[in-house]
Amino acid sequence: MGEHTVTSFDDDLGHIDQLIRDMGDLAGAMVAAATRSLLQNDTALAQRVISDDVVMDARQRELDDRAITLIAKRQPMAQDLRSVVGAIRMAADLERIGDLAKNIAKRVNAVGEGSAPRGLSHSIDTMAQMVMDQVGAVIAAYEARDAKNLVSLREDDEKIDVQYTAVFRELLTYMMEDPRNITACTHLLFCAKNLERIGDHVTNIAENAYYIVTGQQLPLNRPKLDETSVTVDSE
Amino acid sequence: MGEHTVTSFDDDLGHIDQLIRDMGDLAGAMVAAATRSLLQNDTALAQRVISDDVVMDARQRELDDRAITLIAKRQPMAQDLRSVVGAIRMAADLERIGDLAKNIAKRVNAVGEGSAPRGLSHSIDTMAQMVMDQVGAVIAAYEARDAKNLVSLREDDEKIDVQYTAVFRELLTYMMEDPRNITACTHLLFCAKNLERIGDHVTNIAENAYYIVTGQQLPLNRPKLDETSVTVDSE
Repeated sequence: MGEHTVTSFDDDLGHIDQLIRDMGDLAGAMVAAATRSLLQNDTALAQRVISDDVVMDARQRELDDRAITLIAKRQPMAQDLRSVVGAIRMAADLERIGDLAKNIAKRVNAVGEGSAPRGLSHSIDTMAQMVMDQVGAVIAAYEARDAKNLVSLREDDEKIDVQYTAVFRELLTYMMEDPRNITACTHLLFCAKNLERIGDHVTNIAENAYYIVTGQQLPLNRPKLDETSVTVDSE
Repeated sequence: MGEHTVTSFDDDLGHIDQLIRDMGDLAGAMVAAATRSLLQNDTALAQRVISDDVVMDARQRELDDRAITLIAKRQPMAQDLRSVVGAIRMAADLERIGDLAKNIAKRVNAVGEGSAPRGLSHSIDTMAQMVMDQVGAVIAAYEARDAKNLVSLREDDEKIDVQYTAVFRELLTYMMEDPRNITACTHLLFCAKNLERIGDHVTNIAENAYYIVTGQQLPLNRPKLDETSVTVDSE
């Protein structure tokens, strides 16, 4: 394979990586805006998140098309092929993060104004901040091809799960105190759950990035979904 | 490309399709068992669903490995490449269906015995049945390369969303009637939500199968996530 071909492949892959970065930036911005729209009852901002999701979906399609064209055109071998397939998977997770942010934004009206007491807003905000940090960090670690950081990012997802469990309990308490809180709190519960799931998608991205960088799969014991069932059960 | 090469590629693809079928069967069985364990408070059955998920994850890894080896070895062109990449995506959705069934099973203890009144159990059961039918039907339509059926399956997801909204409302009512129901109902709410999300994954599978069969993407207006936010808002 000549030098020219190799460079062209790298150029093509560079375009795909640029799309991953763009999607990562958009995902982080959507999570931030969705959370702010929820906690400040900002319906205009919520609407923007919903529009952003259309952009996100288009980016994913563009990446998929480029990736498949690249495989067909260049017929890459092992390591290169791994990068392209990994990029397709990362894009799918980023697209899902966009969906989840959109779903938070769509609940802004249902939650309404002043439904979340200060303590609860703070807990949700803390959780959202942790999630946003993870989204930014995983894209940065992928760009830096930093395998060690990718492993620790996967482990950090546990902290989000712990915070989710705290929010879950706060919400239950608040619902039990006054049945009039139930509808709004149910929607907030799904918002918190969406943030927790965004954390799971970051974990998936870290795993795929690790696979691209090292050629090896991480062991199968990644943290999965939430553990509130177990937590509540043991109370 | 010689006859021999084509046949070998088809053999390899046949193995991958067999894994899709196996994963589809397992996914349907897991959803059925998870729902039964939930509604009959059968913790032993719930435990089996949790174990089944390990098998599901292993199947997905096997399919991924085979698919990537196939691309590297055979360097397939357009249509064939599309089939392999589509299979990777379908496997990812089936694996997520397994995760969601497992999450239902993990909530069996938290929901406990006799928490769901007869009417509610019936609504959840109806929803689960619709979801199971969809899981079975999408794999069958893929096997039959039936593009028309794949389109209508994607549209059928709306019926699941309608049933989810009904369950969501029943659960809210039940929580408001008696605060002692709140914890159990919250878990049932997530179970119903998981079923609704399994429907979304069936939609994704239908879209990927359609792409494999026809070479064309379905338009972007697929039903996404739930609409209870909007529903509640308009009440």
